[in-house]
Amino acid sequence: MELVDLAARLSCDFLGAPDLDIRGLCDPHQRRPDALLFVERPEKGVPEGAAAYLVPAAFRERIPSDGRAWILAEHPRKAFVACLGIFDPNRPVFREGRASHLPAGCSVGRNVFIGPGVILHASCRLGDDVLLMGNNFIGPGVSLGSRVVLHPGVVLEAGCRVGNDVTIHANTVVGSDGYGYEKGPHGLVKVPQIGTVEIGDHVEIGSNVSIDRATVGATRIGRGTKIDNLVQIAHNVQIGEDCLIVAQCGIAGSSRLGRGVVIGGQAGVADHAEVGDGAMLTSQAGIVTGERVPPGSVLSGTPSIPYGEYKRQYIYLRRLPELFKQLKKEKEH
Amino acid sequence: MELVDLAARLSCDFLGAPDLDIRGLCDPHQRRPDALLFVERPEKGVPEGAAAYLVPAAFRERIPSDGRAWILAEHPRKAFVACLGIFDPNRPVFREGRASHLPAGCSVGRNVFIGPGVILHASCRLGDDVLLMGNNFIGPGVSLGSRVVLHPGVVLEAGCRVGNDVTIHANTVVGSDGYGYEKGPHGLVKVPQIGTVEIGDHVEIGSNVSIDRATVGATRIGRGTKIDNLVQIAHNVQIGEDCLIVAQCGIAGSSRLGRGVVIGGQAGVADHAEVGDGAMLTSQAGIVTGERVPPGSVLSGTPSIPYGEYKRQYIYLRRLPELFKQLKKEKEH
Amino acid sequence: MELVDLAARLSCDFLGAPDLDIRGLCDPHQRRPDALLFVERPEKGVPEGAAAYLVPAAFRERIPSDGRAWILAEHPRKAFVACLGIFDPNRPVFREGRASHLPAGCSVGRNVFIGPGVILHASCRLGDDVLLMGNNFIGPGVSLGSRVVLHPGVVLEAGCRVGNDVTIHANTVVGSDGYGYEKGPHGLVKVPQIGTVEIGDHVEIGSNVSIDRATVGATRIGRGTKIDNLVQIAHNVQIGEDCLIVAQCGIAGSSRLGRGVVIGGQAGVADHAEVGDGAMLTSQAGIVTGERVPPGSVLSGTPSIPYGEYKRQYIYLRRLPELFKQLKKEKEH
Repeated sequence: MELVDLAARLSCDFLGAPDLDIRGLCDPHQRRPDALLFVERPEKGVPEGAAAYLVPAAFRERIPSDGRAWILAEHPRKAFVACLGIFDPNRPVFREGRASHLPAGCSVGRNVFIGPGVILHASCRLGDDVLLMGNNFIGPGVSLGSRVVLHPGVVLEAGCRVGNDVTIHANTVVGSDGYGYEKGPHGLVKVPQIGTVEIGDHVEIGSNVSIDRATVGATRIGRGTKIDNLVQIAHNVQIGEDCLIVAQCGIAGSSRLGRGVVIGGQAGVADHAEVGDGAMLTSQAGIVTGERVPPGSVLSGTPSIPYGEYKRQYIYLRRLPELFKQLKKEKEH
Repeated sequence: MELVDLAARLSCDFLGAPDLDIRGLCDPHQRRPDALLFVERPEKGVPEGAAAYLVPAAFRERIPSDGRAWILAEHPRKAFVACLGIFDPNRPVFREGRASHLPAGCSVGRNVFIGPGVILHASCRLGDDVLLMGNNFIGPGVSLGSRVVLHPGVVLEAGCRVGNDVTIHANTVVGSDGYGYEKGPHGLVKVPQIGTVEIGDHVEIGSNVSIDRATVGATRIGRGTKIDNLVQIAHNVQIGEDCLIVAQCGIAGSSRLGRGVVIGGQAGVADHAEVGDGAMLTSQAGIVTGERVPPGSVLSGTPSIPYGEYKRQYIYLRRLPELFKQLKKEKEH
Repeated sequence: MELVDLAARLSCDFLGAPDLDIRGLCDPHQRRPDALLFVERPEKGVPEGAAAYLVPAAFRERIPSDGRAWILAEHPRKAFVACLGIFDPNRPVFREGRASHLPAGCSVGRNVFIGPGVILHASCRLGDDVLLMGNNFIGPGVSLGSRVVLHPGVVLEAGCRVGNDVTIHANTVVGSDGYGYEKGPHGLVKVPQIGTVEIGDHVEIGSNVSIDRATVGATRIGRGTKIDNLVQIAHNVQIGEDCLIVAQCGIAGSSRLGRGVVIGGQAGVADHAEVGDGAMLTSQAGIVTGERVPPGSVLSGTPSIPYGEYKRQYIYLRRLPELFKQLKKEKEH
């Protein structure tokens, strides 16, 4: 693609030869002389080796006159994301598959690809444009909307329901039994887990995630929520719309997250807690059993406290040795 | 099922029309007019919309006279668990499968279901009533007892042994190599991991769990122990009977857990530690290398301290800024 | 194997009957009368029940004269690792497989085993002596070097590249999409993830690991690095050579690890951080966004501080209640 055409598609100004050939986007760690490099903060330096540079329009005055080519974007991240779409290496489309040997009571929409090793069970429903990449398990009574993509090895246990425009990455499990036991006379007795999991539209779920079925009713993931890799969602959890749940978080049984909640990496929400709309937990934070996190708050640490207090506490903690020494000295006088 | 029959099966009293039809258990977040709702603490309020309510017998005096139907249980959680068993939607039984193409030296019991995509290796032994749901890998020399259920994608590597009445949820791996390397002249050198994993009777293991084989001998999970999702059990770990290991915990190499130990979510036990019988670690606690946790103790934090002390420390920590201010003030005077 | 031969192969001295028959290595928890037990610190006691004992040569003077047999090693761990190699129960070699139905544009080396349920896509390249144990997914354009072992259920998504002498344990996912979203007018918008993953020579990766593809360019794992189970490696992460990444760690987007870095279990590195060569994070440590960890440093806690300071802080923290009481008392006087 020529520089002039790329700039036009991005609705950006450019500097440099209009017919410069741009063949892709640069790896920041291995630049290529035929590709565009995105430099979000060019004031910190612009490395050599790319064909052209995508920079904020505000950098225009400071562009060095060294003959390199530039694209100047009012909204640089937006332009970068648009570039990713333009240069996507056309991930292979899976068209050879077909639904052979459909079990009893299954319904399958148009343009569905069922990859090798997929296990379909009775009474499952697949919408249009569904892509099952391979070695998937679709339990009895499972329902998938349209434009659902299941990467290899994804398991949907019996009765789980998935909305439209949902992508689930490889080896994720939806609908494993909730972790529920009662003490009995001869050890622990399993509490039957007879509920399901419901996943809303436009949800994306990472790889190696575990989402447990509810004891009764459904564990729910709200529309538009995005879940990262290796996350644990326990039974009966209710997650609102448009939440961000970063990698290796755990949400324990029956907890509720409001709308637009952000949970940082490796954070934990204990059972029966409630996290208000728009609240944020920073990485490795821990919310205790039954805690109520106010909407819009930002919490850190375990047990978690407001982020501002957490930062101050950190500073005071580092001054503790000095404090003890000072007090000892005073005492000696 | 009629209200009178359900109450009789639960050995409970009831209030309301005996022939009221109960078709299942209510999702607490989406109540249905034909289902029973379990309300563990009705004194906090009983929501509308269910056909009837399962409440503690002690609530009898405070039941509102509004015509709703009630089941009064002396042991409410026990009655609830019994209800789950009664209304279990009969998870599909897998009967069509059969053991075709058994490799050399395999022995398979009666009433065994081997799902699609299951890979069986030489010299493996399966007891009676075993259910392999599909895409499982059963390595050479693996032995499974009777009434073992492997959910889809479960991998049992070579030589691992599983007792009777064991359930393992989807995509869990038993018998991956322990993490052992020695420094060599040209980088790290792998320590061969030639041991196995032994899983006792009545163990249940969640989804996406990793249990490593021992360097030599066996990594052991004691009878009746229940392991949640995304847990890491390292090589040579010895876990006692009836332990509860909650989601995303990690137990590092050669550590030993006694009987009836409870490890809260996201907690970690470093290597060569010992956790005494009946001890408990709260969520996100960390036990350091070689630590000895006394039987029956409750520990929190990293490095962990007794729970009572942890709670006090938390309170004092929040008063640190005040302390520093006060001391500064005194100094100025 | 006779004691004299075993000692000779280990280049060690021995005490006891030269023709004593040694049939394997002892499980420390279940000793066998025909096997060798490795006792790294015999001064703490040598348990009964083994055929012979592998101990440090320095223990020679304190060996009890009770007729038991001993092997005396100058480098005891090295001798133990050599024993593991000698007594490895010859894990089954997979030779029956073959590459049937190779898709277009695939190239496959000599002596390659492709297990049951393996899904191979167009344009993938497999070197010599590759072992795909079963139910693996090899996406379009994936390249594997020679002597690569993929345990069951391992997924390599489109375009990922793996070097020589690499082992990946079961159900690990390489190349799931990076976690990238932008706020749009109607909720979160996915940032296309068009990069890949590159894994160097002599890398070993545990089970249930997630390694995301880069947004652009490649997520990289350096030569000789060893990754434990259930680890999260986010998009665009660059990991140097010979690092040790222990179980359940998470490395967030675009972070860089130098050479020989050690990350303890359950530790987290937030995004855009840099960890210098030879630095070490202890278990459950947390590095914050954009932090620069100096080469060779040892850090603990969240937010992490130098290990020495962390230990002192722990001691002072435990003395906080005493401090508050003392100050209260002084005030009252």
